[in-house]
Amino acid sequence: MEKLFSVPLKGGISTDVYSLSLSELPAKFSDYGRSVLFVADSNSACYLPPSCESLVLPPGESEKRWESVDRILSRAAGAGMARDSVFIAVGGGVILDMTAFAASVYMRGARVVLVPTTLLSSVDATLGGKTGIDYAGAKNFVGTFYPAEDVLIASETLSTLSEREFRCGLGEVVKHAFLSQDRTLHDFLLSEREAVLRRDKAALDEMIRLSLEVKIWYITRDPEEKKGIRSALNFGHTFGHALESCSSYSVSHGEGVAWGMVRAFRAGVNLGITPSEYADECIGLIRSFGFDTESSIKDEEFPVFCEAIAKDKKKKSGSVRFVLLEGQGRPVLMPLAEDEIKKALR
Amino acid sequence: MEKLFSVPLKGGISTDVYSLSLSELPAKFSDYGRSVLFVADSNSACYLPPSCESLVLPPGESEKRWESVDRILSRAAGAGMARDSVFIAVGGGVILDMTAFAASVYMRGARVVLVPTTLLSSVDATLGGKTGIDYAGAKNFVGTFYPAEDVLIASETLSTLSEREFRCGLGEVVKHAFLSQDRTLHDFLLSEREAVLRRDKAALDEMIRLSLEVKIWYITRDPEEKKGIRSALNFGHTFGHALESCSSYSVSHGEGVAWGMVRAFRAGVNLGITPSEYADECIGLIRSFGFDTESSIKDEEFPVFCEAIAKDKKKKSGSVRFVLLEGQGRPVLMPLAEDEIKKALR
Repeated sequence: MEKLFSVPLKGGISTDVYSLSLSELPAKFSDYGRSVLFVADSNSACYLPPSCESLVLPPGESEKRWESVDRILSRAAGAGMARDSVFIAVGGGVILDMTAFAASVYMRGARVVLVPTTLLSSVDATLGGKTGIDYAGAKNFVGTFYPAEDVLIASETLSTLSEREFRCGLGEVVKHAFLSQDRTLHDFLLSEREAVLRRDKAALDEMIRLSLEVKIWYITRDPEEKKGIRSALNFGHTFGHALESCSSYSVSHGEGVAWGMVRAFRAGVNLGITPSEYADECIGLIRSFGFDTESSIKDEEFPVFCEAIAKDKKKKSGSVRFVLLEGQGRPVLMPLAEDEIKKALR
Repeated sequence: MEKLFSVPLKGGISTDVYSLSLSELPAKFSDYGRSVLFVADSNSACYLPPSCESLVLPPGESEKRWESVDRILSRAAGAGMARDSVFIAVGGGVILDMTAFAASVYMRGARVVLVPTTLLSSVDATLGGKTGIDYAGAKNFVGTFYPAEDVLIASETLSTLSEREFRCGLGEVVKHAFLSQDRTLHDFLLSEREAVLRRDKAALDEMIRLSLEVKIWYITRDPEEKKGIRSALNFGHTFGHALESCSSYSVSHGEGVAWGMVRAFRAGVNLGITPSEYADECIGLIRSFGFDTESSIKDEEFPVFCEAIAKDKKKKSGSVRFVLLEGQGRPVLMPLAEDEIKKALR
């Protein structure tokens, strides 16, 4: 077991991120004492210790709603959990976000530990304290900022992911490569592409570490997304979420983000913000990991697409702000006129 | 309009508390811009401005549940509110706590302004950021810490309260008198008892100001109830909540707290913690405001009473801690053995 990071949070607390092997998990779990509730989905239930207090929920984005949170809270109340009890979430982003949301409102805040079992949740859902559920047709519309006390990453869990699920996480990794203050992760992805795709453990561990480093750079500078710095992590997300929503979530989050980044690069180039050479290079990296970057929004779908965009949480004074890139690690936030959105979709 | 306090909160923000007249409310409301949702119960709907975006909920503790929060969130989403929109809650503690809870989870945190229309909510629910709903049979079991940006107190609203509702708030005021670092509020209540009971506006304003001063002393020293300081504000609450719960809430919160404080004084005296002269004087003040301090828990009701106590949120490592007083403004937290609880109930 290796401690990768100790991410400082306000109030003098921190989120500790560990990289460990599956065989080390049980001992680490027992560190949290007796008053513990494990929450997993049926795909991740295999990682739970035998005979523990646990709740296994059905998998899938459609479960990310209050009724599931209610089940978690109700089980915790039934088990007599207190504020110093620990909610341990084992699974992908849906389970992690919902369990952390439940823990954040249980007695106004119990302890929470996250054990990601997908690449997407390893590099995205574990750090930064964003918890939540989907609501009123919008992703993560209801939630809290509530960082986990520990994150336990056992990258062996990634070996069982389907190719599509694995690529889904790569979408966020590639995003971090563009947002990084240097080219390390971008170059790593170029040179280690094969090792990453065959899920070589050493390559995955290094990729996750580099990816989290970028995320930490942004969230520690703006923990509650109030300064416009952290919002940069939404690069590709405004376009991407709208595509996910329009596809009734048949497009996965990572696929949506990859597609959305291409749209944001195009909008940036159209507006003279993103150098076109840089955009081409980045779009090339996205494509090299097998993402479908070309699916288009038909003219008759455009109003529905714009409606989905209007639901974006990054609104300020009524207008949705998009993240565009001036270059490596140089995000800017700005509203886009409807015809600019349309042009970027072509 | 007078600004009574600017209560500093973490992150450099603060809650501003204003005392103002009913006639000044509309102008103040218009300061919050156009993207505003008013939430009131039917008793307080009379204070809403004409033609505003508003949601009026049924009154009562039984409404303090997720379904009501869901209605608030759903209305806000339908109105296209964003993170910088303002939820304005007008009413008693139930409306204030639920609306602030909804605002705290709406897009992970929108703006919230509280307009208390009861004495209890003026001195209790407005400051300190405790939001929430009842859950699994326990009061405020689910919620967040999320301080309001402004609190607007128009004490004229208190003139229409029933005697019982008014006395309910006095329970918390009297509690603050005991927790204060000095005797100012205690002496004020002794000398101005008549003026307070006939709801003289100047007397009410001064009483509310002194009462909030005490609450601020505790919450600024321990904003998220992590240091055992703020927990002192729960003086009388562990016994009181259990009585409320056993009575299926036919006993009001203030009545429960008044009764609970008498039990906590008795337990303190029994254990040699509270000087008996001080306890007698304080119990005298409680009685002078007309509280029924003698209703008893029958032997056969005792197990249910203990079960309600076990649900208390102030648990640490499995045991419920009671607030006892060593003297004026000197609270201590400690677990009580079952026979000590029984003795205090006699």
